[in-house]
Amino acid sequence: MTECASENEVSVTKSTPRQSLRFVLVETSHPGNIGAAARALKTMGFDELALVSPRRFPSAEATARASGADDILQQTRVFDSLADAVADCSVVYGTSARSRSIEWPTLNPWELAEQVHARSLQAAAGSADTVAVVFGRESSGLRNDELMLCTGRVHIPANPAYSSLNVASAVQILAYELATVAQRSPSVSVETAEESEIEPLADQADMGRFYSHLESVLTRIGYYDPDKPRQLMRRLRRLFNRATLSRSELQILRGVLVAVERHGKD
Amino acid sequence: MTECASENEVSVTKSTPRQSLRFVLVETSHPGNIGAAARALKTMGFDELALVSPRRFPSAEATARASGADDILQQTRVFDSLADAVADCSVVYGTSARSRSIEWPTLNPWELAEQVHARSLQAAAGSADTVAVVFGRESSGLRNDELMLCTGRVHIPANPAYSSLNVASAVQILAYELATVAQRSPSVSVETAEESEIEPLADQADMGRFYSHLESVLTRIGYYDPDKPRQLMRRLRRLFNRATLSRSELQILRGVLVAVERHGKD
Repeated sequence: MTECASENEVSVTKSTPRQSLRFVLVETSHPGNIGAAARALKTMGFDELALVSPRRFPSAEATARASGADDILQQTRVFDSLADAVADCSVVYGTSARSRSIEWPTLNPWELAEQVHARSLQAAAGSADTVAVVFGRESSGLRNDELMLCTGRVHIPANPAYSSLNVASAVQILAYELATVAQRSPSVSVETAEESEIEPLADQADMGRFYSHLESVLTRIGYYDPDKPRQLMRRLRRLFNRATLSRSELQILRGVLVAVERHGKD
Repeated sequence: MTECASENEVSVTKSTPRQSLRFVLVETSHPGNIGAAARALKTMGFDELALVSPRRFPSAEATARASGADDILQQTRVFDSLADAVADCSVVYGTSARSRSIEWPTLNPWELAEQVHARSLQAAAGSADTVAVVFGRESSGLRNDELMLCTGRVHIPANPAYSSLNVASAVQILAYELATVAQRSPSVSVETAEESEIEPLADQADMGRFYSHLESVLTRIGYYDPDKPRQLMRRLRRLFNRATLSRSELQILRGVLVAVERHGKD
């Protein structure tokens, strides 16, 4: 196994034809990790890598470590901010070194994979979600403001005495979980899929506009003081992100905000 | 997440206190892969790495890529042959680029982990199994004679168009599965554990002596001709390896062979 190909493979299946999965690396320092992440994705049947402000890209070191997955690197898009990289995504999972907390529920890798898989089975024709999984800096992970852009968090269980997982290894583990979920728990996922009809989700650009609108309205009505923020917007973001809003739910909320504004003008 | 540690981790649990897990790399060409494998093991709470005839070890590149897991490298033992590296192991899994075949059943990574976990729960006090997982060369995997030393095979599902998984990534995936199996399927494993009492298994040094003895007896009785082998010994090894013999079963078989020899002397 390992590096040698075979014609006789148990193949991985992309968890869905309707869903695309984007792996986003934020401010990666070592180009080798970018190449290794591309290789990790391609072995698991994925092809979409995005970079936010990498220290060096493209680079010969990334291409060398990609080892035949350089087609992934050629298609890789580079963004200036995480907000831009996930603007068209419905669901955004941020990887976190922190485990579950009461304030922010955190998924295990297999729970993430089951959630993504269940949603892919539920997805109606024409609803083409893009799901992003975001990986932080080698040295310090994701910042809090970046985690606030995520609708969910995922934590890879690790040795408490040494949890220093390489970023490309983290990509490999999550890509592996996402690629194999259909094989390992088909029954669970099908049951979940039958639970309910599901609506198309709002994307993160829409959510960003909503939060701006919300902040402006809350400020206007005197409930929110940007000079004394008391974490209010942060808490609201957490709440709505956790809920993973559908487009129609978001329209309703925007309608409410507009109504509040109009009311204030009377 | 990724490289930054946290005091607030969901920790991995070694699948058992009674069982030790050895990860064996055969003829690794790139020292960086050895370091990355050490780091992969340590993040998942394992510490036993063994090398068979590595091209270069120790090396500065391995230490650099180990990134704080250099204690694992310091304890790493180097062997001249795979047979020596697994001589004291009861169960030996060889990673294979080939998927399931009729002649040799191949496990998925999660089946491997469940099997190891179930056995660890079954293990009686005093029965301290050593389980080995063996990874082949970067370019060409394990040779057939090396796979014949394995009691089982494992295959990591991969993209049929690009299954070139880096050897340290393969170590990461299997270590991750072995570290998290208790968390993800505790019920399955506990049920399996209650099924039956289990006996201590024969180790591979005993199995090697048995195969030599068997070959000698078969030759002596004229059933086996080393000049016209017709894959006979290979088939017998496959059969007994797949069965994973207990020590007492092996004693019985050795007793049979001795009896055959004695009979021939009459």
